[in-house]
Amino acid sequence: MDNQYTVGDYLLDRLSFSGISELFGVPGDYNLTFLDSVINHQQITWVGCTNELNAAYGADGYARTKGIGALLTTFGVGELSALNGIAGSFAEYVPVIHIVGAPALASQCKGELLHHTLGDGNFGHFMRMSQPVSVAQAALTPENALSEIDRVIEEVLYHSRPGYILLPSDVAALPVSTRAHALPARQPPFSPSSLDAFVAAAETQLRGAKRVSLLADFLADRFDVKAALEEWMEEVPLPHATLLMGKGLFNEQQTNFAGTYSGAGSAASTREAIEGADVVINVGVKFTDTITAGFTQQLPDGKCIDLQPFSARVGDQIFHQLPVAKTVSVLHRLTAELASGWQSYTVKRTALPAAHEGHFGQYEFWQQIQDFLQPGDILVAEQGTACFGAAALNLPEDCQFVVQPLWGSIGFTLPAAFGVQIAAPARRVVLLIGDGSAQLTLQGLGAAIRYGLPPVIFVINNDGYTVERAIHGETQRYNDIAQWNWTQFPSAFGGKDVFTARADSPQALKEAIEKASAHRQMAWIEVVLPKMDIPELLSSVTKSLAKRNSGQ
Amino acid sequence: MDNQYTVGDYLLDRLSFSGISELFGVPGDYNLTFLDSVINHQQITWVGCTNELNAAYGADGYARTKGIGALLTTFGVGELSALNGIAGSFAEYVPVIHIVGAPALASQCKGELLHHTLGDGNFGHFMRMSQPVSVAQAALTPENALSEIDRVIEEVLYHSRPGYILLPSDVAALPVSTRAHALPARQPPFSPSSLDAFVAAAETQLRGAKRVSLLADFLADRFDVKAALEEWMEEVPLPHATLLMGKGLFNEQQTNFAGTYSGAGSAASTREAIEGADVVINVGVKFTDTITAGFTQQLPDGKCIDLQPFSARVGDQIFHQLPVAKTVSVLHRLTAELASGWQSYTVKRTALPAAHEGHFGQYEFWQQIQDFLQPGDILVAEQGTACFGAAALNLPEDCQFVVQPLWGSIGFTLPAAFGVQIAAPARRVVLLIGDGSAQLTLQGLGAAIRYGLPPVIFVINNDGYTVERAIHGETQRYNDIAQWNWTQFPSAFGGKDVFTARADSPQALKEAIEKASAHRQMAWIEVVLPKMDIPELLSSVTKSLAKRNSGQ
Repeated sequence: MDNQYTVGDYLLDRLSFSGISELFGVPGDYNLTFLDSVINHQQITWVGCTNELNAAYGADGYARTKGIGALLTTFGVGELSALNGIAGSFAEYVPVIHIVGAPALASQCKGELLHHTLGDGNFGHFMRMSQPVSVAQAALTPENALSEIDRVIEEVLYHSRPGYILLPSDVAALPVSTRAHALPARQPPFSPSSLDAFVAAAETQLRGAKRVSLLADFLADRFDVKAALEEWMEEVPLPHATLLMGKGLFNEQQTNFAGTYSGAGSAASTREAIEGADVVINVGVKFTDTITAGFTQQLPDGKCIDLQPFSARVGDQIFHQLPVAKTVSVLHRLTAELASGWQSYTVKRTALPAAHEGHFGQYEFWQQIQDFLQPGDILVAEQGTACFGAAALNLPEDCQFVVQPLWGSIGFTLPAAFGVQIAAPARRVVLLIGDGSAQLTLQGLGAAIRYGLPPVIFVINNDGYTVERAIHGETQRYNDIAQWNWTQFPSAFGGKDVFTARADSPQALKEAIEKASAHRQMAWIEVVLPKMDIPELLSSVTKSLAKRNSGQ
Repeated sequence: MDNQYTVGDYLLDRLSFSGISELFGVPGDYNLTFLDSVINHQQITWVGCTNELNAAYGADGYARTKGIGALLTTFGVGELSALNGIAGSFAEYVPVIHIVGAPALASQCKGELLHHTLGDGNFGHFMRMSQPVSVAQAALTPENALSEIDRVIEEVLYHSRPGYILLPSDVAALPVSTRAHALPARQPPFSPSSLDAFVAAAETQLRGAKRVSLLADFLADRFDVKAALEEWMEEVPLPHATLLMGKGLFNEQQTNFAGTYSGAGSAASTREAIEGADVVINVGVKFTDTITAGFTQQLPDGKCIDLQPFSARVGDQIFHQLPVAKTVSVLHRLTAELASGWQSYTVKRTALPAAHEGHFGQYEFWQQIQDFLQPGDILVAEQGTACFGAAALNLPEDCQFVVQPLWGSIGFTLPAAFGVQIAAPARRVVLLIGDGSAQLTLQGLGAAIRYGLPPVIFVINNDGYTVERAIHGETQRYNDIAQWNWTQFPSAFGGKDVFTARADSPQALKEAIEKASAHRQMAWIEVVLPKMDIPELLSSVTKSLAKRNSGQ
């Protein structure tokens, strides 16, 4: 009996076929039977987390690195704790499958007053609460289980956004005779005539151009044209940049790479390289507030060719049913043909501001981080000082960069880095996080220690919510936080091989970094920086946010 | 200009008039302007928390002690993190006002792609997600702000459940000329003819009785008949009990108090006292699964008089428009008249099982906790071993008991105890929590240390999710957790005056308790108990849950 193939097994096989080899989550009494199937599964490994929000952040980080992720929670209490993490995945197009262990259908049908419910016999509330932050939802029954599992996973992959599966404990254990197979991915609609029209319009625009630049962002990564873009930029000499969300898309060592574009918050050389062109090709770009220093981009529609995941725009003409892989491919060919007719343009690069002797602040910190980074690293940077400071870095080759500037949930990166490291055990994960943020999800450190992971973590201790201080209330008490003894946590969490240091000078940081590099296990380095010392880009961003909050 | 009276000030005055003197929460860039008003307010004190879930749990604990609570979060990221806590308040009828700082209306109207949104220019998603777990929601505008604030707070107090207020940053700062006044509470509908009919039916039922007992639970506390019930039980000799959720309603030292009723999981003496009567009066009772050991109560409708907050039932007759204060009052008078005609009944009390010499397990632990408790204490017990073990305690006079057995979100009590202690700074708060639970919300300890609070905290270290082991998967890996060095945390969180101990024997526990009592500051005591050693009641409960999960 115990070895019968069940709905739970089918779901796990389906996850495995879609590229998942680890399942994040927290046990709860409505998901325990399914967890037996998880433990017995040959391809899927269970990754127990300290709470559900951290599990959601972990699955998100994992999906950003591996292409898809999943987490398991329990009904009501568990799933709602995960919602903020899922909403972040939704906002930033990260495909995460949220499986929720639910009371047995037999109990649901009777409307029993069970724990983890609102005590009203209604079992539909929480799935409804997940609807705005998922592209598909399914409440599994014996009748629909297999087809609904297929549907939700297909939608998740197609839209690159979360899906929700409610798995009653008795349905999970139900034997089924159909085994899961690998399914072909759903193809987006494609119209050849629309493509012809698009090419004609783009060609007109590009032929008349004197100088062309390219700006790509995160949707290019989520809809799988990163490799195609890199190839394009190697073959055709276009000045190109990413916004902050898409940083890491390009080989930043390439001569035509112009840096991280942030509208008026950009380095002058980056702005000139992008905005100075008379045609700008945007690939997978969404101009949101923080990454444009408050919508300060100077890129009027009339001079842009805009490629979105399923459509494109040239000036004010919109072309539907055009997958981005197709439009990238045709523009690659088109620009290769036309490039010789354009002005040549040499990208200038802005170096990081020089460190000052005897001072320890942003300049000195970022210079050392720049020197520390190696090809192949995955750099995870928390919203705030870390992520906006990191915008100015020049990433070594094959670096992945993980940030969350649209959703911007502080505390995200500590558990997300855990998920990233689970997804890529052989790569070096470097995390930069502020003290205010780390307080929200501190348990993420415990999880990384439990699993013996080796990330290098810098906790930037600037004594409170520095980003908020920069926006409003610089000296207000609400922007203060408790001073914790950060270096004591690895031991408290049971860490035995964690290199721990506190750096309050350039020399101390240099020494800590050297020791951490030699250590090859986890490193946890507290970096003590001045309270109101913030990166220049962040300063432009926070000024625009403050203005917006006042309704101006 | 800065001293103008604003919408934010009005809201704070209204909170203050409704009984709130502390506001829990986490700053975020959409609530900073309002926070200036909070800091400047004469009656409301800001209580900064480490994350939003903990803030929600804190506000819930505060409201359970003080009658109402409130928390402030920021749009999207903050409010969704708090949702699980708010849902718990909704399920368990705890009045908490959730204020969410939102982007300026000016930005919302333009549909700007702001951070902390789903990037779609739609600002209504998250309020919709809060609807199933709140009795009223309001999105404030310049036109509706004052009346909507009044409405939400009135609904929260009336229903004793959460309400949601979306406060755009520019609306918060808007000057208004109307100042807040204290408002009379909304009165529930009352029908004198319905009361007459109810009294007639109840009298018929009670006159024919040989023996009458009374069972009260949490809704009696939430709808303010605790004092009336106590008086009733002092004057009329009825055997009476609570279920676990309502424990603490009665003076447990009273001779007619029969213990904590849990259906078939009850002590034999409790069950006999309640079920053995031929008429049972239920006051504010909801029979949910865990507190009835899986619906094992033997209380057929035909022999019950059931008082609910706004209605009553005698046998199969339902009477509407009857506030519980009225029905309690008339039944008090009626039973006082009739009691002399009933059999007298002497309540037997079941003592805690005796401790065994040389052994350290549940019996030995609970005996010491029983001895430690003092009149006036507030005992907070986490779902699991702590709460089901505490069911057997005999509370000293004037003890409050805080548990969450319906919603049952593990990790709840560490931040909730923080909120309870903020609400009642002069009382001793005793917290019992398991290691698996404490991992979810560990930061709650940091918050208590930051605010210099003196609770006595017992962390029951039984090496994992013991409740889950008892339900399913006793030795399965998913029920294991990381072993943390619990006693190191107070120092890591910056605690200077925390008494810390690890007790792995009855002697060590005794010594720790003595020292903690003498210390008068916070105490953090790790109690090492065997992995599968669980209270008897919990064992009945988990067996019923396991059966239910399999769909039987």
